[in-house]
Amino acid sequence: METLLLSGDDVRMSAPLSEVVTAVEASFAAFARGDAQMPAKSYIDLPAYNGDFRSMPASLSTPEWDAAGLKWINVHPDNPERFDLPTVVGTMIYSDPETGFPLAILDGKELTRLRTGAAAAVATDHLAVVDADSFGVVGAGVQSYTQLRAISQVRDIDEVVVADHDAERVAAFVAAFEDEFDAAGGSIAEAASCDVVSTVTPVESPIVPRDAVGPRTHINAIGADAAGKHELDDDILLDSRLVIDDYEQTTHSGEINVPWSQGLLDNDDIYGSVGEVVTGEKPGRTDGDGITVFDSTGLAVQDVAAAHVAYEHATEADVGYAFDFLGVA
Amino acid sequence: METLLLSGDDVRMSAPLSEVVTAVEASFAAFARGDAQMPAKSYIDLPAYNGDFRSMPASLSTPEWDAAGLKWINVHPDNPERFDLPTVVGTMIYSDPETGFPLAILDGKELTRLRTGAAAAVATDHLAVVDADSFGVVGAGVQSYTQLRAISQVRDIDEVVVADHDAERVAAFVAAFEDEFDAAGGSIAEAASCDVVSTVTPVESPIVPRDAVGPRTHINAIGADAAGKHELDDDILLDSRLVIDDYEQTTHSGEINVPWSQGLLDNDDIYGSVGEVVTGEKPGRTDGDGITVFDSTGLAVQDVAAAHVAYEHATEADVGYAFDFLGVA
Repeated sequence: METLLLSGDDVRMSAPLSEVVTAVEASFAAFARGDAQMPAKSYIDLPAYNGDFRSMPASLSTPEWDAAGLKWINVHPDNPERFDLPTVVGTMIYSDPETGFPLAILDGKELTRLRTGAAAAVATDHLAVVDADSFGVVGAGVQSYTQLRAISQVRDIDEVVVADHDAERVAAFVAAFEDEFDAAGGSIAEAASCDVVSTVTPVESPIVPRDAVGPRTHINAIGADAAGKHELDDDILLDSRLVIDDYEQTTHSGEINVPWSQGLLDNDDIYGSVGEVVTGEKPGRTDGDGITVFDSTGLAVQDVAAAHVAYEHATEADVGYAFDFLGVA
Repeated sequence: METLLLSGDDVRMSAPLSEVVTAVEASFAAFARGDAQMPAKSYIDLPAYNGDFRSMPASLSTPEWDAAGLKWINVHPDNPERFDLPTVVGTMIYSDPETGFPLAILDGKELTRLRTGAAAAVATDHLAVVDADSFGVVGAGVQSYTQLRAISQVRDIDEVVVADHDAERVAAFVAAFEDEFDAAGGSIAEAASCDVVSTVTPVESPIVPRDAVGPRTHINAIGADAAGKHELDDDILLDSRLVIDDYEQTTHSGEINVPWSQGLLDNDDIYGSVGEVVTGEKPGRTDGDGITVFDSTGLAVQDVAAAHVAYEHATEADVGYAFDFLGVA
């Protein structure tokens, strides 16, 4: 029996975003229904190297498929400058829950982008206005691309506004999408007034002001992934219907962690989890809703779901390299 | 940059046991000194498949090298019968702590055997009588082979007694070693009277009686890896100098977990950790000592240490298959 190795290119080729969105939606539902196991992320801090490792194991069972796996991912901010490597590298082991056999090993960096985009798309599908046709993105880094690609799977996006202080990154983003969308650079306020907004920056002081946000805008708050980080004015959170992916993770390291630790937000301000919205336990957007916010920190079940899609397609299309780890025929 | 893939055969070829013993000893010392990070193992139980997954991340720093990695390993007892697969499959990701880059991905099954044998050898080196020349092993499964190979690195073993109720397994073990040792099948009592003993069975009721154990025997208790399992009569533990690998793990799932939960053993019965013995913080065997017992549950730092040895040798000797996950030149 062999294990399929999938590089970043293989993963991209084998995981159509429309299907990753569907699989991630199913993983949120499984988690909300109790049909998933997801031990807490564990961290290894490496202050000597200004980096850390995170291990994210999970298994889940949906009505159509079950799956298990683990993502071992790092954050080393000095990598690009010092080693010409991405900040996040990471590796995913996708395993058969029935035997424990490692079916595939995948590039974790590419998978992370896909499943993060897909999570925003699932939330957008349930929380944005139905006729949303404009998308604003704050931050033009690697995540911004999969945000647009994923969200355009669930809404008929026409106009795209990208805001970033780095003009080169704005130009690269616009060049990548100008054939498909009416895409242009703009201010944060211009981006924030769109029907759907994603924020994908690592800032520690909010950069999106309350008054810039459209009256019925849905915001995917993606950037915050550690205590101390937040991108949105506290008033946006206080004035919105607030949906989270996971209580422990968002209160400790998500968009809400800073106002939460200051006592500005509490349980009464959280509407529910994206899984509760997906299963219908709590309704998505209703006619009376104004601003909605999805605080996304990233769940291990999303990684397993995205790996499931990539593995199924790659097997079908004979993509990747098969390696015999075990020496079992 | 490429990631080196090492199959079970590659690992065996690239990880000389003498060096794995040295590296595992260094990992115990690093852990005892506080130069290691080892978040608690996390478990995913899969009752529908009678199996589980365990994730074991760690990083450590020794005076000569530092290393990090994660082992994702399963236990599926039905595998051999139903799927012609080993009970334990498992995969190790060995990462550069400086960048997070996955330097190697290794067969976790082979690595587990090597590092478990090495742990017993380290304990034996510090706790067995210096002139130990007989080795008894209770249980002739896959672990028994690496127990003998590792322990013979630290003591000049001549006579070997193997006890197992399965005559075929006894014959296979004897055939594998009769050229190197005076090896023969025998009773549990005969095995337990040797200078060094390793027990490697999954039993839940003790099978080694107190009166069978030699007066100055050192026992490596390897088999117990879950609550409810133990191999040694309680009186052996009570009458011995008892050394553990990790307090949390051994009291929950090691050889001592059953008498511990019954209140028959407590903190006063534990002499110390193998790391404290390795660093000299607590002396190893002294002239006055009788029976010594090492309760080994297996630490994530051992896996990282064994992977370090395998990776260094494999790189040097051009063993394994290099795969480009990232698409980074």
